[in-house]
Parts: sequence; structure tokens; C-alpha cells
Amino acid sequence: MKEHVYAGIDVGGTFVKIGLVTKDGEVLSKTQIPSQIDQPAKNMLKRAAQTIHDLLKAQKNCKLKGVGIGTAGAVNVDEGILYEAPNMPDWKNEPFGEILSDLLGVPVVLDNDANVAAWGEYAYGAGRGSKYMLMVTLGTGVGGGLVLDGKPFRGAIDAGGEFGHVKLDFNGWVCACGCKGCVEAYVGTRGILRQVREGLKKYPDSLLSKVNPENIMPVDVSMAANEGDALAIEVLRQTGEYLGYSLANVVNLLNIQRVVVGGGVAKAGDWILKPAFDAMKADSMRVPGEIVDLLPAELGNSAGLVGAAWLSAFRSGDL
Amino acid sequence: MKEHVYAGIDVGGTFVKIGLVTKDGEVLSKTQIPSQIDQPAKNMLKRAAQTIHDLLKAQKNCKLKGVGIGTAGAVNVDEGILYEAPNMPDWKNEPFGEILSDLLGVPVVLDNDANVAAWGEYAYGAGRGSKYMLMVTLGTGVGGGLVLDGKPFRGAIDAGGEFGHVKLDFNGWVCACGCKGCVEAYVGTRGILRQVREGLKKYPDSLLSKVNPENIMPVDVSMAANEGDALAIEVLRQTGEYLGYSLANVVNLLNIQRVVVGGGVAKAGDWILKPAFDAMKADSMRVPGEIVDLLPAELGNSAGLVGAAWLSAFRSGDL
Repeated sequence: MKEHVYAGIDVGGTFVKIGLVTKDGEVLSKTQIPSQIDQPAKNMLKRAAQTIHDLLKAQKNCKLKGVGIGTAGAVNVDEGILYEAPNMPDWKNEPFGEILSDLLGVPVVLDNDANVAAWGEYAYGAGRGSKYMLMVTLGTGVGGGLVLDGKPFRGAIDAGGEFGHVKLDFNGWVCACGCKGCVEAYVGTRGILRQVREGLKKYPDSLLSKVNPENIMPVDVSMAANEGDALAIEVLRQTGEYLGYSLANVVNLLNIQRVVVGGGVAKAGDWILKPAFDAMKADSMRVPGEIVDLLPAELGNSAGLVGAAWLSAFRSGDL
Repeated sequence: MKEHVYAGIDVGGTFVKIGLVTKDGEVLSKTQIPSQIDQPAKNMLKRAAQTIHDLLKAQKNCKLKGVGIGTAGAVNVDEGILYEAPNMPDWKNEPFGEILSDLLGVPVVLDNDANVAAWGEYAYGAGRGSKYMLMVTLGTGVGGGLVLDGKPFRGAIDAGGEFGHVKLDFNGWVCACGCKGCVEAYVGTRGILRQVREGLKKYPDSLLSKVNPENIMPVDVSMAANEGDALAIEVLRQTGEYLGYSLANVVNLLNIQRVVVGGGVAKAGDWILKPAFDAMKADSMRVPGEIVDLLPAELGNSAGLVGAAWLSAFRSGDL
């Protein structure tokens, strides 16, 4: 008898990652194709379908049961439509689900990329064993994805999970979204760099003073911290505290068991995660605060792909 | 054939409200008995059971299908246990559910009072028609209750829904819970009075300057606002803005459709609710912000009683 497999697709602005995944989370094979976002979305989906055919052919005894797609941008999960994505400006209201389902003859489910990364970590990564989990992705922006009672949570019109726009200061820094005091404005790339710029006044001899302020990146701050630079350590500690304070909101409101932190900025590791954990505990109410843990993400760049495949298996009732 | 009814019980520190409610939310009869919190909890439950018998006897053709209890304090919903409640200090680890179920021979479900008020407004009050709702109770403290995807939400160990401890200022006022910047520290009774005290420096001729600062209550602020007092109007506007800013966190994270605001302080009405609505909209992301509404609670003091009865009907699968 053939083994059931699910295809996971993770659509980004440059590459589309594609893999075959069992319902136990084993990645049987994976590859990537260029996104070619200047071409119609349908072309990308045709190439993705062909890639899935090729991957299946290379496996023995595998039968495709379903496909999950994660994509940047705003989506309608029930209808499988990508509304729009800032980094793929030519694609609007694209019926990803319908097109790919017609090409492959199996059910297709679409979700946004922050969500599928959360489902991946929940099912097969650092979220394993929890039923109430928040995934936070630290990068240029700050993404979020919620699992509540063992199920993906999206809210009334699939617009929930926006942890990056949980707020920490009524009179605070203005976020890219236009509102004041969002955690993204503090712990996203721009926020960290703003902290560095303001900190250089106090620490003029910091290693970071030698980097062109226009080109400085969070990885420079991590590297400087690893070399013992006081400003860099202070900025990462403060970043962790902002993050932990904001997480306490989610702990008090949702009584989650697990926070998983991924994304490029999270590579700073305990420079950020230790103060984040401590602040989350200190700023939460006693009872929900006692049971919540914080762990680094485990799946790296594969989280979206396996999470999309998991979503397909979850929807099919195969789990 | 006899009509199925559910009993709702709302246990407070002074009185226990008890009523018979149909699954459509009609209150057939209600009454209250003293809580007598200096006596064992079992005595209160015996008197409550007897009261339910009496109410049933007075009805014709009613069959009791189940009982819901809302109580102040921390509870274990699945086991029907009241762990502890600050205003009922002698009652600890009381198996309310088991005791009452033995007395009445029907299933009994227990929940905390902020939650059952939320379930009541959701099922039969200002939350009707929504599937994702936050109930906020403004009083000495600030309570919260969440309905997500049409179901009561409590989190991993029934400790969720604590909207009062969503935070709005990283360096803000210290809350009774010990943490900085909780919305309760700003819009709870103590927070409003702190705003008044600080505001009197700027508005020394305010009507509120004539009230003994030790005895001033939120209702005095509402009354002064109704008489056109500039400080009172400003404090209630600012209170509404704090509330709305904090609500935007919930909108962005949970993509809720409806906020219902009840409790004594909410009697200030549009002095608070209008700026709260405006701030919630302005501080939310565009997509989830567009669909969310804010309404005053409808059920007043009966919300807990009918919500407890609704929970019993919901658990029985009768809805």
C-alpha cells in the first residue's frame, strides 16, 4: 500500500520552497524554484505543481493526499485566495487554492507564512507537546501565529495573530503600521537600530560606533555582544525585556503554555531570549505565568514548508 | 411534555443569585439568598439546591436539565472546584460541582464570575450575533471574558481572559497585581481616582475639588461630567483612550468582532465608551480594526446568572 504524503509549499518573494512531508513530519524530499513574481501567479503554481510531480516520481510508493501553501501577504483561508502581498505587488486576489487543486487533483489549503511557520513549530518543532502556543518571528517585522486548544487560530476574518502589533507604550515609538508603541517598533530591525543609535550617545566607544550607521544590522549587534561590547549587550537585554513585557499580555489574556521564538534576530539567542523569558515571567500574573515556557524555534527555514504540509493533513482529518 | 430548564447561580461575597432560565435565555424566575461566607460552603450549596427546588415547584411543567455556577475567585472548570476567592476567604478547594450535582442529580458546571457574565452577554445580550467577543467589566478591578469561534475560551488551565492585565505602558503605573502598566491600573477605580488627583493640579476649580479625596468615586466623576466639569470630562475621555488602546491589542491578536463593556464604571456611558471606540479603531491594524464594534452590556446584574445557565445548556449539547 502506498504511503500518504502531503506537499508543503512556502511562497516568498524570491524563492518558492517545496517539499514532500509525511503526516509524522518527516521531510521525504525538498527543493526550491524561483518565484518569478513578475510573471503571472498561475505560472508559478504550474511550475510548483510540476515540481511536486517530479518529487513524487522520485519517491517509491507515495500517494499525494493534499497540499498546503504558506504565502507572504493577506489571505482568505477558506477560499484559498491571496489578496495581496507587499513583496509580490503584481499578484492580487489570486485563487491559489483553486488553481493548484485543479492542477493536482487533491485538496489545497492556503494560509499566510507567519501562520504556517507557527503550525510547523507546533506540530514538529519547539511547540511539540503544547496545546496553547504563540510563535513569534523576529526579523524586519515581528510576526505571530497562535495555536489555541490544539488548533490553528486566526480570528474572525483570518486577520488575528498579529503579535508584532501588541503594544507596550501608550506614548511610544511609532510603528510602521502607523500606531504608537507596537512591540515591532522596538524589537523589529528598525527598533533595534534605533536603540543602538540612541545608546551610542551613552556608549560612544562601543564597537558599534565603528559600523556605518546606515548599514548596521541586528547581526552586528549580536557579534558585538559576543565580543563583550556593553552597548550591544544592553540593547539586546532591553530588546528582550520589551519582548517579554509584550508576551506577558498574551500570557494573561490567553493562558498559553509555550512561546516559540524564531526568525533571524532570534539568532542572538540568550542575549535576547533570557531577558525575554525573565520579563515575561515577572510581568505575568502568578497562575498563568507559572506554566508558560519560552523556547527557541527548531525548524529554521523549513518551518513554513512542514507547517503548510501539516495544515493540509490536519484539514484532511488524517491526524 | 415538560420544558427543559437550566438553573443559573451567581455566587458573590454577599448574595447568591439564583434563577431558572430556558435555553433561549428567558429567565422564568429568579431570587437571591445570603451567601453566609462564614459558614461552610456546603451549607450555601444546600440552601441553593433547596431554592432551586422551590423555584421549580412554583413553575408548571419544568424539568431541570443542568446547573451552571459562576463564582468569584479562581476555579477549575473541568473538576468543578473553587480554589480560592479573595472575598470569600474561608472557602478553599471547595468541590462546588460535585456537591451540588449530588444534591440535585443533574450535571453541574462551574466557572468564574467574569466568564459567566461574558457568556451571558454573548448568548443573550450585547454579544449576540458575534462569534469572537471580548467582555470587559469595569469596576474596582477590570475583568475580562473571551468567546472565540463561538465557544467560551479559558486557556490552558482556565486562567485566561485577564484583559485587566493587558498592559499599556512599559514604565507605567503599578497595578494591584504588582506589574507595571496594566490597563486596570489606569481605568479601574483606583486608576480613575489617580487621574482625578493628578488632574486637580491643572483644574483646581473643578467640581471634584469639592469632594473629599478619600471618598471620591467614579460615579462622582460621571456626575461632574454631566454637569460640564472640564476635569471630569477629560478624565473620562482619557480613561476611554487607555481602554481603547488596550483593546487594540486584543483586536490585533485575536481579530475579535465585538467588545462588550459592562460594570459599574461603564455607567459613565459615552463619556468613556465613545473615546474608547475611537481609540480602539485608530490603534488597531486596518483589516481587523474595520470589523470590530464596541457596545455597552445589556444584561446588567443578570448577566452572570443567565451566562451560568447558558454554560450548562452549552455543555449539555442542548444548544
